[in-house]
Amino acid sequence: MERVRVRAVADTAERDRRDAVAVEEPMEIRVACGGERRTLAITMRTPGADFELAAGFLAGEGVIAGPERIQGISYCDDPDVPASARFNTVTVRLRGERLPEMPGLDRHFLTSSACGVCGTASLDALRERPFPPGALPPEHPAVRPEALYELPGRLREAQGIFGKTGGLHAAGLFTADGEPVAVREDVGRHNAVDKLVGWALLDGRLPLRDHVLMVSGRTSYEITQKALAAGVGVVCAVSAPSSLAVDLAREFGMTLIGFLRDRRFNIYADSGRVRTTTP
Amino acid sequence: MERVRVRAVADTAERDRRDAVAVEEPMEIRVACGGERRTLAITMRTPGADFELAAGFLAGEGVIAGPERIQGISYCDDPDVPASARFNTVTVRLRGERLPEMPGLDRHFLTSSACGVCGTASLDALRERPFPPGALPPEHPAVRPEALYELPGRLREAQGIFGKTGGLHAAGLFTADGEPVAVREDVGRHNAVDKLVGWALLDGRLPLRDHVLMVSGRTSYEITQKALAAGVGVVCAVSAPSSLAVDLAREFGMTLIGFLRDRRFNIYADSGRVRTTTP
Repeated sequence: MERVRVRAVADTAERDRRDAVAVEEPMEIRVACGGERRTLAITMRTPGADFELAAGFLAGEGVIAGPERIQGISYCDDPDVPASARFNTVTVRLRGERLPEMPGLDRHFLTSSACGVCGTASLDALRERPFPPGALPPEHPAVRPEALYELPGRLREAQGIFGKTGGLHAAGLFTADGEPVAVREDVGRHNAVDKLVGWALLDGRLPLRDHVLMVSGRTSYEITQKALAAGVGVVCAVSAPSSLAVDLAREFGMTLIGFLRDRRFNIYADSGRVRTTTP
Repeated sequence: MERVRVRAVADTAERDRRDAVAVEEPMEIRVACGGERRTLAITMRTPGADFELAAGFLAGEGVIAGPERIQGISYCDDPDVPASARFNTVTVRLRGERLPEMPGLDRHFLTSSACGVCGTASLDALRERPFPPGALPPEHPAVRPEALYELPGRLREAQGIFGKTGGLHAAGLFTADGEPVAVREDVGRHNAVDKLVGWALLDGRLPLRDHVLMVSGRTSYEITQKALAAGVGVVCAVSAPSSLAVDLAREFGMTLIGFLRDRRFNIYADSGRVRTTTP
Protein backbone atom coordinates (compact mmCIF):
# COMPACT_ATOMS: atom_id res chain seq x y z
CA MET A 1 0.00 0.00 0.00
CA GLU A 2 0.97 3.59 -0.47
CA ARG A 3 0.28 6.53 1.83
CA VAL A 4 -1.27 9.61 0.26
CA ARG A 5 -2.37 12.92 1.70
CA VAL A 6 -6.16 13.34 1.78
CA ARG A 7 -8.63 15.86 3.08
CA ALA A 8 -11.20 13.98 5.13
CA VAL A 9 -14.64 15.63 5.19
CA ALA A 10 -17.28 14.46 7.67
CA ASP A 11 -20.57 16.26 7.93
CA THR A 12 -19.47 19.87 8.42
CA ALA A 13 -15.94 19.16 9.69
CA GLU A 14 -12.76 18.52 7.77
CA ARG A 15 -9.12 17.78 8.38
CA ASP A 16 -5.99 16.80 6.49
CA ARG A 17 -4.55 13.39 7.15
CA ARG A 18 -2.74 10.52 5.50
CA ASP A 19 -4.61 7.58 4.04
CA ALA A 20 -3.44 4.24 2.69
CA VAL A 21 -4.40 3.31 -0.86
CA ALA A 22 -3.88 0.04 -2.68
CA VAL A 23 -1.01 0.11 -5.13
CA GLU A 24 -1.96 -0.52 -8.76
CA GLU A 25 0.69 -1.06 -11.44
CA PRO A 26 0.72 -2.75 -14.83
CA MET A 27 2.43 -6.12 -15.22
CA GLU A 28 3.16 -7.82 -18.51
CA ILE A 29 3.03 -11.63 -18.44
CA ARG A 30 5.30 -13.33 -20.97
CA VAL A 31 5.94 -16.96 -21.71
CA ALA A 32 9.15 -18.20 -23.34
CA CYS A 33 10.37 -21.57 -24.55
CA GLY A 34 13.46 -22.32 -26.62
CA GLY A 35 13.87 -19.27 -28.82
CA GLU A 36 10.18 -18.42 -28.78
CA ARG A 37 8.58 -15.77 -26.63
CA ARG A 38 5.09 -14.28 -26.47
CA THR A 39 3.27 -11.71 -24.40
CA LEU A 40 0.12 -13.27 -22.99
CA ALA A 41 -1.44 -10.39 -21.12
CA ILE A 42 -0.89 -7.09 -19.43
CA THR A 43 -2.80 -6.76 -16.22
CA MET A 44 -3.14 -4.00 -13.64
CA ARG A 45 -2.09 -5.60 -10.39
CA THR A 46 -0.93 -4.88 -6.88
CA PRO A 47 2.80 -5.64 -6.83
CA GLY A 48 3.70 -8.69 -4.77
CA ALA A 49 3.39 -12.41 -5.53
CA ASP A 50 4.21 -11.46 -9.13
CA PHE A 51 5.66 -14.85 -10.01
CA GLU A 52 2.62 -16.57 -8.55
CA LEU A 53 0.40 -14.26 -10.57
CA ALA A 54 2.21 -15.18 -13.78
CA ALA A 55 2.19 -18.92 -13.02
CA GLY A 56 -1.46 -18.83 -11.99
CA PHE A 57 -2.42 -16.98 -15.13
CA LEU A 58 -0.77 -19.69 -17.23
CA ALA A 59 -2.59 -22.37 -15.25
CA GLY A 60 -5.90 -20.61 -15.85
CA GLU A 61 -5.20 -20.64 -19.56
CA GLY A 62 -4.47 -24.35 -19.47
CA VAL A 63 -0.86 -23.76 -20.59
CA ILE A 64 0.64 -25.54 -17.58
CA ALA A 65 -0.84 -27.87 -14.99
CA GLY A 66 2.10 -28.19 -12.61
CA PRO A 67 5.56 -26.88 -11.76
CA GLU A 68 7.46 -29.55 -13.69
CA ARG A 69 7.03 -27.68 -16.96
CA ILE A 70 8.54 -24.46 -15.56
CA GLN A 71 12.25 -23.86 -15.99
CA GLY A 72 12.23 -20.49 -14.31
CA ILE A 73 10.32 -17.28 -13.68
CA SER A 74 12.08 -13.94 -13.83
CA TYR A 75 11.66 -10.21 -13.97
CA CYS A 76 12.87 -8.34 -17.01
CA ASP A 77 16.64 -7.91 -17.01
CA ASP A 78 16.93 -5.91 -20.21
CA PRO A 79 19.40 -3.08 -19.49
CA ASP A 80 17.55 -0.91 -22.00
CA VAL A 81 14.44 -1.01 -19.85
CA PRO A 82 14.35 1.52 -16.98
CA ALA A 83 15.02 -0.18 -13.66
CA SER A 84 11.66 0.94 -12.29
CA ALA A 85 9.83 -0.80 -15.13
CA ARG A 86 11.74 -4.08 -14.98
CA PHE A 87 9.55 -5.30 -12.16
CA ASN A 88 6.53 -4.84 -14.36
CA THR A 89 7.45 -7.61 -16.77
CA VAL A 90 7.52 -11.25 -15.71
CA THR A 91 8.58 -14.06 -18.01
CA VAL A 92 7.74 -17.70 -17.34
CA ARG A 93 10.33 -19.84 -19.11
CA LEU A 94 9.11 -23.33 -19.98
CA ARG A 95 11.22 -26.43 -20.46
CA GLY A 96 11.38 -27.79 -23.97
CA GLU A 97 12.08 -26.37 -27.38
CA ARG A 98 8.80 -24.85 -28.46
CA LEU A 99 5.94 -22.97 -26.90
CA PRO A 100 2.93 -25.22 -26.30
CA GLU A 101 -0.23 -24.61 -28.25
CA MET A 102 -2.23 -21.90 -26.63
CA PRO A 103 -5.71 -21.89 -28.12
CA GLY A 104 -6.74 -19.18 -25.70
CA LEU A 105 -3.99 -16.86 -26.83
CA ASP A 106 -5.90 -15.12 -29.58
CA ARG A 107 -8.69 -14.67 -27.15
CA HIS A 108 -6.31 -12.88 -24.83
CA PHE A 109 -4.97 -10.70 -27.53
CA LEU A 110 -8.48 -9.38 -27.71
CA THR A 111 -9.05 -9.46 -24.05
CA SER A 112 -7.53 -9.59 -20.65
CA SER A 113 -6.49 -11.72 -17.80
CA ALA A 114 -8.05 -9.61 -15.27
CA CYS A 115 -11.59 -8.85 -16.04
CA GLY A 116 -13.69 -11.69 -17.25
CA VAL A 117 -13.62 -11.42 -20.98
CA CYS A 118 -14.04 -14.12 -23.54
CA GLY A 119 -14.04 -14.40 -27.25
CA THR A 120 -16.91 -16.76 -27.65
CA ALA A 121 -20.62 -16.32 -27.33
CA SER A 122 -20.96 -19.66 -25.62
CA LEU A 123 -19.16 -22.05 -23.35
CA ASP A 124 -17.98 -24.13 -26.28
CA ALA A 125 -14.38 -23.02 -26.04
CA LEU A 126 -14.10 -24.36 -22.53
CA ARG A 127 -14.87 -27.87 -23.70
CA GLU A 128 -11.53 -27.80 -25.50
CA ARG A 129 -9.71 -27.00 -22.29
CA PRO A 130 -8.08 -29.41 -19.87
CA PHE A 131 -11.15 -29.47 -17.65
CA PRO A 132 -13.95 -31.17 -19.56
CA PRO A 133 -17.38 -31.58 -17.94
CA GLY A 134 -17.12 -34.39 -15.46
CA ALA A 135 -13.52 -33.68 -14.50
CA LEU A 136 -14.58 -32.59 -11.02
CA PRO A 137 -15.45 -35.54 -8.78
CA PRO A 138 -19.09 -35.21 -7.62
CA GLU A 139 -19.85 -35.20 -3.89
CA HIS A 140 -16.23 -34.36 -3.12
CA PRO A 141 -15.21 -32.56 -1.04
CA ALA A 142 -18.15 -32.67 1.34
CA VAL A 143 -18.72 -29.27 2.96
CA ARG A 144 -20.97 -28.44 5.88
CA PRO A 145 -22.75 -25.12 6.46
CA GLU A 146 -21.02 -24.60 9.82
CA ALA A 147 -17.64 -24.71 8.09
CA LEU A 148 -18.79 -22.41 5.30
CA TYR A 149 -20.15 -19.84 7.77
CA GLU A 150 -16.59 -19.39 9.08
CA LEU A 151 -15.04 -18.52 5.74
CA PRO A 152 -15.91 -14.80 5.33
CA GLY A 153 -14.51 -13.94 8.75
CA ARG A 154 -11.37 -15.98 8.20
CA LEU A 155 -10.80 -14.44 4.79
CA ARG A 156 -11.18 -10.97 6.27
CA GLU A 157 -8.86 -11.76 9.19
CA ALA A 158 -6.17 -12.76 6.72
CA GLN A 159 -6.58 -9.54 4.75
CA GLY A 160 -3.97 -7.25 6.25
CA ILE A 161 -4.20 -4.27 3.99
CA PHE A 162 -7.85 -4.55 3.17
CA GLY A 163 -9.01 -3.27 6.49
CA LYS A 164 -6.91 -0.19 6.04
CA THR A 165 -7.94 0.73 2.51
CA GLY A 166 -11.08 -1.13 1.50
CA GLY A 167 -9.40 -1.27 -1.87
CA LEU A 168 -8.19 -4.85 -2.20
CA HIS A 169 -9.97 -7.99 -3.23
CA ALA A 170 -9.03 -11.27 -1.61
CA ALA A 171 -9.09 -14.91 -2.65
CA GLY A 172 -8.61 -17.60 -0.03
CA LEU A 173 -8.02 -21.30 -0.24
CA PHE A 174 -9.53 -23.36 2.58
CA THR A 175 -9.83 -26.99 3.52
CA ALA A 176 -13.29 -28.52 3.36
CA ASP A 177 -13.44 -28.03 7.13
CA GLY A 178 -12.91 -24.30 6.72
CA GLU A 179 -9.26 -24.12 7.78
CA PRO A 180 -7.32 -21.44 5.91
CA VAL A 181 -4.55 -22.68 3.64
CA ALA A 182 -3.50 -19.53 1.77
CA VAL A 183 -4.87 -16.06 1.01
CA ARG A 184 -3.83 -13.60 -1.69
CA GLU A 185 -4.90 -10.01 -2.30
CA ASP A 186 -4.96 -7.67 -5.27
CA VAL A 187 -6.72 -4.60 -6.64
CA GLY A 188 -8.06 -6.95 -9.31
CA ARG A 189 -10.19 -9.82 -8.10
CA HIS A 190 -9.07 -12.03 -10.98
CA ASN A 191 -5.45 -11.36 -10.10
CA ALA A 192 -6.08 -12.44 -6.52
CA VAL A 193 -7.33 -15.80 -7.81
CA ASP A 194 -4.39 -16.10 -10.21
CA LYS A 195 -1.94 -15.44 -7.37
CA LEU A 196 -3.58 -18.08 -5.22
CA VAL A 197 -3.65 -20.66 -7.99
CA GLY A 198 -0.07 -19.79 -8.93
CA TRP A 199 1.05 -20.34 -5.36
CA ALA A 200 -0.64 -23.74 -5.34
CA LEU A 201 0.85 -24.63 -8.71
CA LEU A 202 4.40 -23.72 -7.70
CA ASP A 203 3.90 -25.68 -4.50
CA GLY A 204 2.86 -28.76 -6.48
CA ARG A 205 -0.69 -28.75 -5.16
CA LEU A 206 -2.73 -28.68 -8.38
CA PRO A 207 -5.40 -29.85 -8.99
CA LEU A 208 -7.05 -28.52 -5.82
CA ARG A 209 -9.65 -31.25 -5.60
CA ASP A 210 -9.99 -31.19 -1.79
CA HIS A 211 -10.27 -27.44 -1.36
CA VAL A 212 -12.74 -24.60 -1.19
CA LEU A 213 -12.07 -21.26 -2.88
CA MET A 214 -13.56 -18.17 -1.27
CA VAL A 215 -13.51 -14.74 -2.94
CA SER A 216 -14.34 -11.41 -1.36
CA GLY A 217 -16.48 -10.03 -4.15
CA ARG A 218 -18.69 -11.40 -6.87
CA THR A 219 -18.17 -14.44 -9.08
CA SER A 220 -17.99 -13.83 -12.81
CA TYR A 221 -17.48 -16.18 -15.70
CA GLU A 222 -13.73 -15.63 -15.47
CA ILE A 223 -13.42 -16.37 -11.75
CA THR A 224 -15.39 -19.58 -12.21
CA GLN A 225 -13.30 -20.57 -15.21
CA LYS A 226 -10.03 -20.02 -13.32
CA ALA A 227 -11.28 -22.12 -10.42
CA LEU A 228 -12.30 -24.85 -12.82
CA ALA A 229 -8.87 -24.84 -14.46
CA ALA A 230 -7.33 -25.31 -11.01
CA GLY A 231 -9.65 -28.22 -10.27
CA VAL A 232 -11.51 -26.49 -7.44
CA GLY A 233 -14.93 -28.02 -6.89
CA VAL A 234 -16.38 -25.54 -4.40
CA VAL A 235 -16.36 -21.78 -5.04
CA CYS A 236 -17.85 -19.36 -2.51
CA ALA A 237 -18.30 -15.61 -2.70
CA VAL A 238 -19.40 -12.89 -0.32
CA SER A 239 -21.53 -11.40 -3.07
CA ALA A 240 -23.53 -12.52 -6.13
CA PRO A 241 -22.60 -14.68 -9.11
CA SER A 242 -23.32 -13.64 -12.68
CA SER A 243 -25.61 -15.66 -14.95
CA LEU A 244 -22.65 -17.06 -16.86
CA ALA A 245 -20.87 -18.11 -13.66
CA VAL A 246 -23.98 -20.09 -12.71
CA ASP A 247 -24.24 -21.65 -16.19
CA LEU A 248 -20.58 -22.63 -16.12
CA ALA A 249 -20.71 -24.12 -12.64
CA ARG A 250 -23.79 -26.17 -13.45
CA GLU A 251 -22.41 -27.46 -16.71
CA PHE A 252 -19.09 -28.51 -15.23
CA GLY A 253 -20.38 -29.95 -11.96
CA MET A 254 -18.93 -27.26 -9.70
CA THR A 255 -20.52 -26.16 -6.44
CA LEU A 256 -21.16 -22.40 -6.58
CA ILE A 257 -22.18 -20.51 -3.45
CA GLY A 258 -23.03 -16.82 -3.24
CA PHE A 259 -23.97 -14.25 -0.59
CA LEU A 260 -22.00 -16.18 2.00
CA ARG A 261 -22.17 -13.90 5.06
CA ASP A 262 -23.90 -13.62 8.43
CA ARG A 263 -24.52 -17.37 8.65
CA ARG A 264 -26.37 -17.47 5.35
CA PHE A 265 -25.65 -18.46 1.78
CA ASN A 266 -27.30 -19.36 -1.50
CA ILE A 267 -26.38 -22.50 -3.43
CA TYR A 268 -26.50 -21.72 -7.15
CA ALA A 269 -25.02 -25.02 -8.29
CA ASP A 270 -24.03 -28.18 -6.49
CA SER A 271 -23.02 -31.77 -7.15
CA GLY A 272 -23.85 -33.29 -3.83
CA ARG A 273 -21.05 -31.55 -1.93
CA VAL A 274 -23.02 -29.33 0.42
CA ARG A 275 -24.24 -31.47 3.32
CA THR A 276 -27.08 -29.61 4.96
CA THR A 277 -28.85 -31.13 7.92
CA THR A 278 -32.01 -31.96 6.00
CA PRO A 279 -31.24 -34.36 3.15
CA MET B 1 -31.50 -10.10 -14.96
CA GLU B 2 -32.16 -13.79 -15.06
CA ARG B 3 -34.02 -15.91 -12.55
CA VAL B 4 -32.29 -19.05 -11.35
CA ARG B 5 -33.27 -21.71 -8.88
CA VAL B 6 -31.22 -21.59 -5.66
CA ARG B 7 -31.17 -23.35 -2.34
CA ALA B 8 -31.10 -20.69 0.36
CA VAL B 9 -29.40 -21.79 3.58
CA ALA B 10 -29.73 -19.67 6.73
CA ASP B 11 -28.29 -20.89 10.00
CA THR B 12 -29.81 -24.37 10.28
CA ALA B 13 -32.76 -23.84 7.92
CA GLU B 14 -32.94 -24.14 4.17
CA ARG B 15 -35.43 -23.77 1.36
CA ASP B 16 -35.56 -23.75 -2.42
CA ARG B 17 -36.47 -20.51 -4.11
CA ARG B 18 -35.79 -18.43 -7.18
CA ASP B 19 -33.15 -15.73 -7.16
CA ALA B 20 -32.29 -13.02 -9.67
CA VAL B 21 -28.74 -12.89 -11.00
CA ALA B 22 -27.15 -10.29 -13.22
CA VAL B 23 -26.80 -11.37 -16.83
CA GLU B 24 -23.25 -11.57 -18.15
CA GLU B 25 -22.54 -12.09 -21.85
CA PRO B 26 -19.59 -11.33 -24.09
CA MET B 27 -19.80 -8.44 -26.54
CA GLU B 28 -17.33 -7.73 -29.32
CA ILE B 29 -16.81 -4.06 -30.15
CA ARG B 30 -15.83 -3.37 -33.74
CA VAL B 31 -15.13 -0.16 -35.59
CA ALA B 32 -15.49 0.18 -39.37
CA CYS B 33 -14.76 2.94 -41.85
CA GLY B 34 -14.75 2.72 -45.65
CA GLY B 35 -13.62 -0.81 -46.40
CA GLU B 36 -11.65 -1.13 -43.15
CA ARG B 37 -12.83 -2.91 -40.05
CA ARG B 38 -11.16 -3.83 -36.76
CA THR B 39 -12.14 -5.52 -33.54
CA LEU B 40 -11.24 -3.25 -30.62
CA ALA B 41 -12.25 -5.32 -27.64
CA ILE B 42 -14.37 -8.13 -26.34
CA THR B 43 -15.92 -7.37 -23.01
CA MET B 44 -18.16 -9.32 -20.67
CA ARG B 45 -21.16 -7.10 -20.19
CA THR B 46 -24.77 -7.05 -19.07
CA PRO B 47 -26.85 -6.81 -22.26
CA GLY B 48 -28.62 -3.49 -22.65
CA ALA B 49 -27.34 -0.09 -23.76
CA ASP B 50 -25.03 -2.00 -26.09
CA PHE B 51 -24.70 0.82 -28.61
CA GLU B 52 -23.91 3.25 -25.79
CA LEU B 53 -21.31 0.81 -24.50
CA ALA B 54 -19.62 0.64 -27.91
CA ALA B 55 -19.73 4.42 -28.42
CA GLY B 56 -18.48 5.09 -24.91
CA PHE B 57 -15.64 2.64 -25.33
CA LEU B 58 -14.53 4.47 -28.46
CA ALA B 59 -14.73 7.80 -26.63
CA GLY B 60 -12.58 6.41 -23.83
CA GLU B 61 -10.00 5.40 -26.36
CA GLY B 62 -9.99 8.87 -27.88
CA VAL B 63 -11.23 7.53 -31.22
CA ILE B 64 -14.29 9.81 -31.30
CA ALA B 65 -15.20 12.90 -29.31
CA GLY B 66 -18.78 13.42 -30.49
CA PRO B 67 -21.62 11.92 -32.51
CA GLU B 68 -20.80 13.73 -35.74
CA ARG B 69 -18.16 11.17 -36.66
CA ILE B 70 -20.59 8.23 -36.32
CA GLN B 71 -22.45 7.05 -39.40
CA GLY B 72 -24.25 4.25 -37.63
CA ILE B 73 -24.10 1.60 -34.95
CA SER B 74 -25.43 -1.87 -35.59
CA TYR B 75 -25.57 -5.43 -34.36
CA CYS B 76 -24.05 -8.15 -36.49
CA ASP B 77 -26.27 -9.04 -39.46
CA ASP B 78 -24.11 -11.82 -40.85
CA PRO B 79 -26.50 -14.65 -41.78
CA ASP B 80 -23.71 -17.14 -41.07
CA VAL B 81 -23.65 -16.10 -37.41
CA PRO B 82 -26.26 -17.79 -35.18
CA ALA B 83 -29.10 -15.39 -34.38
CA SER B 84 -28.40 -15.67 -30.65
CA ALA B 85 -24.82 -14.50 -31.13
CA ARG B 86 -25.60 -11.57 -33.42
CA PHE B 87 -26.47 -9.40 -30.46
CA ASN B 88 -23.01 -9.99 -29.07
CA THR B 89 -21.23 -8.08 -31.81
CA VAL B 90 -21.65 -4.33 -32.23
CA THR B 91 -20.02 -2.35 -35.03
CA VAL B 92 -19.60 1.41 -34.92
CA ARG B 93 -19.36 2.66 -38.50
CA LEU B 94 -17.50 5.95 -38.84
CA ARG B 95 -17.91 8.51 -41.59
CA GLY B 96 -14.98 8.90 -43.95
CA GLU B 97 -12.82 6.60 -45.96
CA ARG B 98 -10.28 5.31 -43.50
CA LEU B 99 -10.14 4.29 -39.88
CA PRO B 100 -8.59 6.99 -37.71
CA GLU B 101 -5.28 6.34 -36.03
CA MET B 102 -5.81 4.42 -32.85
CA PRO B 103 -2.63 4.52 -30.82
CA GLY B 104 -4.36 2.69 -28.01
CA LEU B 105 -5.34 -0.19 -30.26
CA ASP B 106 -2.25 -2.29 -29.72
CA ARG B 107 -2.71 -1.75 -26.05
CA HIS B 108 -6.19 -3.19 -26.31
CA PHE B 109 -5.06 -6.16 -28.25
CA LEU B 110 -3.12 -7.00 -25.16
CA THR B 111 -5.72 -5.89 -22.76
CA SER B 112 -9.33 -5.08 -22.21
CA SER B 113 -11.94 -2.46 -22.01
CA ALA B 114 -13.34 -3.76 -18.87
CA CYS B 115 -10.75 -4.14 -16.24
CA GLY B 116 -8.21 -1.44 -15.91
CA VAL B 117 -5.28 -2.66 -17.90
CA CYS B 118 -2.64 -0.66 -19.62
CA GLY B 119 0.36 -1.32 -21.73
CA THR B 120 2.70 1.19 -20.22
CA ALA B 121 4.54 1.32 -16.97
CA SER B 122 3.80 5.00 -16.60
CA LEU B 123 1.27 7.64 -17.44
CA ASP B 124 3.25 8.70 -20.49
CA ALA B 125 0.85 7.25 -23.00
CA LEU B 126 -1.99 9.38 -21.69
CA ARG B 127 -0.12 12.54 -22.57
CA GLU B 128 -0.57 11.59 -26.22
CA ARG B 129 -4.32 11.42 -25.80
CA PRO B 130 -6.91 14.12 -26.44
CA PHE B 131 -6.90 15.14 -22.78
CA PRO B 132 -3.54 16.69 -21.97
CA PRO B 133 -2.83 17.93 -18.45
CA GLY B 134 -4.63 21.22 -18.00
CA ALA B 135 -7.54 20.29 -20.25
CA LEU B 136 -9.91 20.27 -17.27
CA PRO B 137 -10.82 23.78 -16.12
CA PRO B 138 -9.71 24.25 -12.49
CA GLU B 139 -12.29 25.28 -9.89
CA HIS B 140 -15.11 24.18 -12.21
CA PRO B 141 -17.62 22.87 -11.47
CA ALA B 142 -17.82 23.96 -7.84
CA VAL B 143 -19.25 21.19 -5.66
CA ARG B 144 -20.45 21.48 -2.07
CA PRO B 145 -20.35 18.66 0.50
CA GLU B 146 -24.11 18.77 1.03
CA ALA B 147 -24.65 18.00 -2.64
CA LEU B 148 -22.03 15.23 -2.62
CA TYR B 149 -23.59 13.58 0.44
CA GLU B 150 -26.76 13.02 -1.63
CA LEU B 151 -25.05 11.12 -4.44
CA PRO B 152 -24.73 7.58 -3.00
CA GLY B 153 -28.42 7.44 -2.10
CA ARG B 154 -29.51 8.82 -5.45
CA LEU B 155 -27.29 6.41 -7.33
CA ARG B 156 -28.74 3.52 -5.36
CA GLU B 157 -32.31 4.70 -5.88
CA ALA B 158 -31.73 4.65 -9.63
CA GLN B 159 -30.33 1.12 -9.52
CA GLY B 160 -33.33 -1.03 -10.27
CA ILE B 161 -31.75 -4.42 -10.54
CA PHE B 162 -28.98 -3.87 -8.04
CA GLY B 163 -31.24 -4.16 -5.06
CA LYS B 164 -32.41 -7.52 -6.25
CA THR B 165 -29.07 -9.12 -7.01
CA GLY B 166 -26.25 -7.13 -5.49
CA GLY B 167 -24.45 -8.10 -8.66
CA LEU B 168 -24.40 -4.92 -10.71
CA HIS B 169 -22.12 -1.93 -10.63
CA ALA B 170 -23.54 1.50 -11.34
CA ALA B 171 -22.18 4.72 -12.78
CA GLY B 172 -24.19 7.90 -12.47
CA LEU B 173 -23.87 11.33 -14.00
CA PHE B 174 -25.02 14.21 -11.80
CA THR B 175 -25.12 17.97 -11.98
CA ALA B 176 -22.80 19.87 -9.67
CA ASP B 177 -25.83 20.38 -7.40
CA GLY B 178 -26.29 16.63 -7.11
CA GLU B 179 -29.27 16.24 -9.43
CA PRO B 180 -29.23 12.93 -11.32
CA VAL B 181 -28.81 13.16 -15.09
CA ALA B 182 -28.33 9.54 -16.13
CA VAL B 183 -27.39 6.20 -14.54
CA ARG B 184 -26.15 3.02 -16.18
CA GLU B 185 -25.51 -0.44 -14.73
CA ASP B 186 -23.39 -3.43 -15.67
CA VAL B 187 -21.69 -6.48 -14.20
CA GLY B 188 -18.45 -4.73 -15.12
CA ARG B 189 -17.82 -1.39 -13.51
CA HIS B 190 -15.83 -0.15 -16.50
CA ASN B 191 -18.70 -1.05 -18.78
CA ALA B 192 -21.10 0.98 -16.65
CA VAL B 193 -18.89 4.03 -17.18
CA ASP B 194 -18.59 3.32 -20.91
CA LYS B 195 -22.39 3.08 -21.21
CA LEU B 196 -22.83 6.37 -19.41
CA VAL B 197 -20.20 8.16 -21.48
CA GLY B 198 -21.62 6.60 -24.65
CA TRP B 199 -25.07 7.88 -23.79
CA ALA B 200 -23.67 11.37 -23.28
CA LEU B 201 -21.69 11.17 -26.50
CA LEU B 202 -24.68 10.08 -28.60
CA ASP B 203 -26.70 12.84 -26.99
CA GLY B 204 -24.08 15.44 -28.00
CA ARG B 205 -23.12 16.22 -24.42
CA LEU B 206 -19.34 15.62 -24.47
CA PRO B 207 -17.17 16.94 -22.92
CA LEU B 208 -18.96 16.67 -19.57
CA ARG B 209 -17.28 19.71 -18.03
CA ASP B 210 -20.18 20.67 -15.74
CA HIS B 211 -20.87 17.23 -14.31
CA VAL B 212 -19.97 14.87 -11.52
CA LEU B 213 -19.43 11.15 -12.11
CA MET B 214 -20.29 8.81 -9.26
CA VAL B 215 -19.42 5.08 -9.33
CA SER B 216 -20.68 2.40 -6.97
CA GLY B 217 -17.37 0.66 -6.37
CA ARG B 218 -13.73 1.58 -6.38
CA THR B 219 -11.83 3.86 -8.74
CA SER B 220 -9.01 2.31 -10.72
CA TYR B 221 -6.65 3.74 -13.28
CA GLU B 222 -9.05 2.76 -16.04
CA ILE B 223 -12.14 4.37 -14.51
CA THR B 224 -10.22 7.60 -13.97
CA GLN B 225 -8.86 7.52 -17.50
CA LYS B 226 -12.32 7.03 -18.99
CA ALA B 227 -13.67 9.94 -16.98
CA LEU B 228 -10.78 12.08 -18.12
CA ALA B 229 -11.42 11.22 -21.76
CA ALA B 230 -15.04 12.33 -21.28
CA GLY B 231 -13.92 15.63 -19.76
CA VAL B 232 -15.37 14.93 -16.31
CA GLY B 233 -13.64 17.00 -13.65
CA VAL B 234 -15.16 15.45 -10.52
CA VAL B 235 -15.16 11.68 -9.92
CA CYS B 236 -16.66 10.21 -6.76
CA ALA B 237 -16.76 6.62 -5.54
CA VAL B 238 -18.41 4.77 -2.70
CA SER B 239 -15.16 2.93 -2.08
CA ALA B 240 -11.40 3.48 -2.37
CA PRO B 241 -9.24 4.67 -5.25
CA SER B 242 -6.07 2.87 -6.31
CA SER B 243 -2.65 4.53 -6.19
CA LEU B 244 -2.63 5.00 -9.94
CA ALA B 245 -6.09 6.56 -9.94
CA VAL B 246 -4.81 9.13 -7.42
CA ASP B 247 -1.65 9.79 -9.46
CA LEU B 248 -3.66 10.24 -12.63
CA ALA B 249 -6.22 12.57 -11.04
CA ARG B 250 -3.51 14.75 -9.51
CA GLU B 251 -1.49 14.98 -12.69
CA PHE B 252 -4.46 15.90 -14.85
CA GLY B 253 -6.16 18.28 -12.43
CA MET B 254 -9.18 16.08 -11.72
CA THR B 255 -11.05 16.06 -8.40
CA LEU B 256 -11.08 12.52 -7.02
CA ILE B 257 -13.28 11.65 -4.05
CA GLY B 258 -13.46 8.28 -2.32
CA PHE B 259 -15.40 6.63 0.50
CA LEU B 260 -18.37 8.87 -0.20
CA ARG B 261 -21.03 7.47 2.14
CA ASP B 262 -22.81 8.30 5.40
CA ARG B 263 -22.14 12.04 5.06
CA ARG B 264 -18.39 11.54 4.78
CA PHE B 265 -15.79 11.48 2.04
CA ASN B 266 -12.07 11.73 1.41
CA ILE B 267 -10.63 14.12 -1.16
CA TYR B 268 -7.65 12.45 -2.84
CA ALA B 269 -7.14 15.11 -5.48
CA ASP B 270 -8.73 18.47 -6.11
CA SER B 271 -8.29 21.60 -8.20
CA GLY B 272 -10.30 24.02 -6.14
CA ARG B 273 -13.66 22.46 -6.96
CA VAL B 274 -14.74 21.20 -3.55
CA ARG B 275 -16.09 24.14 -1.57
CA THR B 276 -16.06 23.16 2.06
CA THR B 277 -17.25 25.58 4.69
CA THR B 278 -13.80 26.28 6.07
CA PRO B 279 -11.62 27.76 3.35
